[in-house]
Amino acid sequence: MAKDKKVEQITDMEEDFAKWYTDVCRKAELIDYSSVKGMFILRPYGYAIWENIQRELDRMFKEGGHENVSMPLLIPESLLQKEKDHVKGFAPECAWVTIGGSEELEERLCVRPTSETLFCEHWSHILRSWRDLPLLYNQWCSVLRWEKSSRPFLRHREFLWQEGHTLHADAEEAIAETEQQLEVYAKLCEEFLAMPVTRGLKTEKEKFAGAERTYAIECMMHDGKALQSGTSHYFGDGFAKAFDITFSDKNNTLAHPHQTSWGLSTRTIGGIIMTHGDNNGLVLPPKIAPIQVIVVPIAQHKEGVSEKALELLKLLKSLGIRAKADFSDQSPGWKFAEHEMKGVPLRLELGPKDLESGACVAVRRDTGEKTVIKLEELESAVPELLEKVQNAMYNKALANLNANTFSAQTVEDVAQLVSSHGGGFVKTMWCGSEECEIAMKERAGVTSRVIPFDQENLGETCPVCGKSADKMVIWGVAY
Amino acid sequence: MAKDKKVEQITDMEEDFAKWYTDVCRKAELIDYSSVKGMFILRPYGYAIWENIQRELDRMFKEGGHENVSMPLLIPESLLQKEKDHVKGFAPECAWVTIGGSEELEERLCVRPTSETLFCEHWSHILRSWRDLPLLYNQWCSVLRWEKSSRPFLRHREFLWQEGHTLHADAEEAIAETEQQLEVYAKLCEEFLAMPVTRGLKTEKEKFAGAERTYAIECMMHDGKALQSGTSHYFGDGFAKAFDITFSDKNNTLAHPHQTSWGLSTRTIGGIIMTHGDNNGLVLPPKIAPIQVIVVPIAQHKEGVSEKALELLKLLKSLGIRAKADFSDQSPGWKFAEHEMKGVPLRLELGPKDLESGACVAVRRDTGEKTVIKLEELESAVPELLEKVQNAMYNKALANLNANTFSAQTVEDVAQLVSSHGGGFVKTMWCGSEECEIAMKERAGVTSRVIPFDQENLGETCPVCGKSADKMVIWGVAY
Repeated sequence: MAKDKKVEQITDMEEDFAKWYTDVCRKAELIDYSSVKGMFILRPYGYAIWENIQRELDRMFKEGGHENVSMPLLIPESLLQKEKDHVKGFAPECAWVTIGGSEELEERLCVRPTSETLFCEHWSHILRSWRDLPLLYNQWCSVLRWEKSSRPFLRHREFLWQEGHTLHADAEEAIAETEQQLEVYAKLCEEFLAMPVTRGLKTEKEKFAGAERTYAIECMMHDGKALQSGTSHYFGDGFAKAFDITFSDKNNTLAHPHQTSWGLSTRTIGGIIMTHGDNNGLVLPPKIAPIQVIVVPIAQHKEGVSEKALELLKLLKSLGIRAKADFSDQSPGWKFAEHEMKGVPLRLELGPKDLESGACVAVRRDTGEKTVIKLEELESAVPELLEKVQNAMYNKALANLNANTFSAQTVEDVAQLVSSHGGGFVKTMWCGSEECEIAMKERAGVTSRVIPFDQENLGETCPVCGKSADKMVIWGVAY
Repeated sequence: MAKDKKVEQITDMEEDFAKWYTDVCRKAELIDYSSVKGMFILRPYGYAIWENIQRELDRMFKEGGHENVSMPLLIPESLLQKEKDHVKGFAPECAWVTIGGSEELEERLCVRPTSETLFCEHWSHILRSWRDLPLLYNQWCSVLRWEKSSRPFLRHREFLWQEGHTLHADAEEAIAETEQQLEVYAKLCEEFLAMPVTRGLKTEKEKFAGAERTYAIECMMHDGKALQSGTSHYFGDGFAKAFDITFSDKNNTLAHPHQTSWGLSTRTIGGIIMTHGDNNGLVLPPKIAPIQVIVVPIAQHKEGVSEKALELLKLLKSLGIRAKADFSDQSPGWKFAEHEMKGVPLRLELGPKDLESGACVAVRRDTGEKTVIKLEELESAVPELLEKVQNAMYNKALANLNANTFSAQTVEDVAQLVSSHGGGFVKTMWCGSEECEIAMKERAGVTSRVIPFDQENLGETCPVCGKSADKMVIWGVAY
């Protein structure tokens, strides 16, 4: 039997988590490196995961009344500079176009790192009356951030994302939008990606450049580190003032609208890998897997096997299941390993013996558990199994989150917990000062992840300065 | 009644076609200008048309086995230079990133004008065996071409498109792919956009930089000018050789694969506008219209009107029709004009009298024709009407194409036909020489559009040089 592809071994995660991660990204054919450092190619299988994320998010956005638009790729430097905090945050990692059509440009143009300034400029053209509000826009695109280091999905100089941008008549409505969209992200993660999230507010130090408030969802990776998986910002009317965006309100008075933005990127795919993956490769939640079921014929040259496998495939597809059959000339063992590497949630094996008994063998990717399914029960059994896998994956990730979440009363305890568990979320009270936040980083090696919505009273004082503290913060080591 | 928006008049197309066109683009809220010359904002209504085009094309691509990927935005200069004809064609209109993260780059990076070079580099990494072929990839993205002049949809410095890129084991298969994908574009135009197309081959002079053959579909606009609406290129193995892409074939010999690429852009939206629009604004084919039916309540404050309108809306949506109802506090006349401007194919008017008679009035955007529809027949009548509109729009466009297509025997006839009709397609025989093509341009003001697949024998000699000619060419004035 000819073989010109091999299922290569990957590094064990216990041995080297970072190497395991990049091994999975490459061997599962999610990604390839390009000749520009930090810019990655999303291969068909990696992009298909993103398409599934896009489909679910786009549906939820539209259900919420949002509309998609397309803004320019390039931002004139003068436009970027209009909001002072914003430019301070982004200018250091901008990439600049300085030559167009063989001529030096009069003003250099930044490749968008984010598009607040472009939306604001457009809104200043079109907004007239309270009747036009709210404006609920979203854009699917890529953005550039010229960072020094890079890592597949987690840190790209160019990454794919969506950026929602909305305008509202008042602060209350804008804040409600900010929170609602964070909840959309939480729903995506929990219901589709099987990733439990911690919702909360970022500290002043960690918030988005130019925002009044930044909300975030944080996820716990296999190695105990945190991944920020989606952020939602409330801007107040700061940008509106800087860009002179006004509308006549119901009293016919000129007013500045209140603004939000929110984004989720391909970084989330890194989160899926590090939440669910194992030493055999990727493990994908059924709801987001490009291939939900792989049918592998055993001894496919034997009479009736291929025909039955095709029939089975057709049945699965008719149920709306994303299924494929592997009729390649590789051995069954090779095929098993290949589709395990790619994280396909369910494998159906069908051989001559199964034909005789009118059944097939279903193998779960997440647990390896085997079930014999009668062919006539396939129609109900496969969707049930897929749901079971989805739920089990969520519960497993939740157990990992719980097992890695701790409380502490002193900075020393935080440091000790994080170093002994190689990460984890540590909850402490906090006085609210940036000095204590910086001190915590210096002394315990952690940053504030969020001030969670679900607050607990762990005491009365800040573990750093000993002063009165009424907020609980979650600290962690973040990607 | 408060009004803070006006439906403004647009220029008549007979008076100034170019002005009429940009008026429609702005007043139908398809587009806004940004602060970078030649870079446009696609507003929600304009982008929604693109989303509908995307949905149909993406479905057809995937039915043909194609997979989506994401390639980097930036191309190192050295990579762009690997294929000599290609770089010659694109270098003059490249935009260059020269600074990243406050540092001058060692090698400048071109913002992709098209991605052949990126796909080739990736393929050189991953292709090993004939078993990996064909590779059928597509990418949805934007590209930059630093052109001097610009016009909404027709000529942007940045435009949205899809670019398909495929690799095949032999020339025959690659050429079949090139032709098949042209047919996908033709199907999109004819069946969905109601735009009849002329399919054919581009001359050597007009083909894509680096291609062996370029196929195109050409559409006839209202003003008699031609719009190239989709192109499909066969590259032979030229790029494969330049990029050292090889595979071991069935005889275990290293071979170069054969390549294609094909693209369709937001330019097509310009085509829809100029094919179907009229002096009241946009006219959209139902299959691609963001809103297929607008329900306008008349005297909506009267008892039962709004309720019935909502009921009607719900019914339409349940049929899978993209419907909206306009309950704003504008007058019915204002609403009629607004939705006419936006080209909504069908308007349903529902007032107190209609409630009494258990009917509503349907008004076609394309003809203005009114039909009284009994409410209990709505379920079948509306889809039928929408289909009627779709077909009528195609037939009207076909009639315009036929009325503006001519044959000629001499260069003088070509010049005379084009000047008296302000455009049109003129068919002549052609000897195949570039000199005659250039002479035709100089003497008659037309360029070769395509060598159509449907050849006719109009004579034996080239109208320019008088030498023997065995090809028929279509000439025209192109956008």
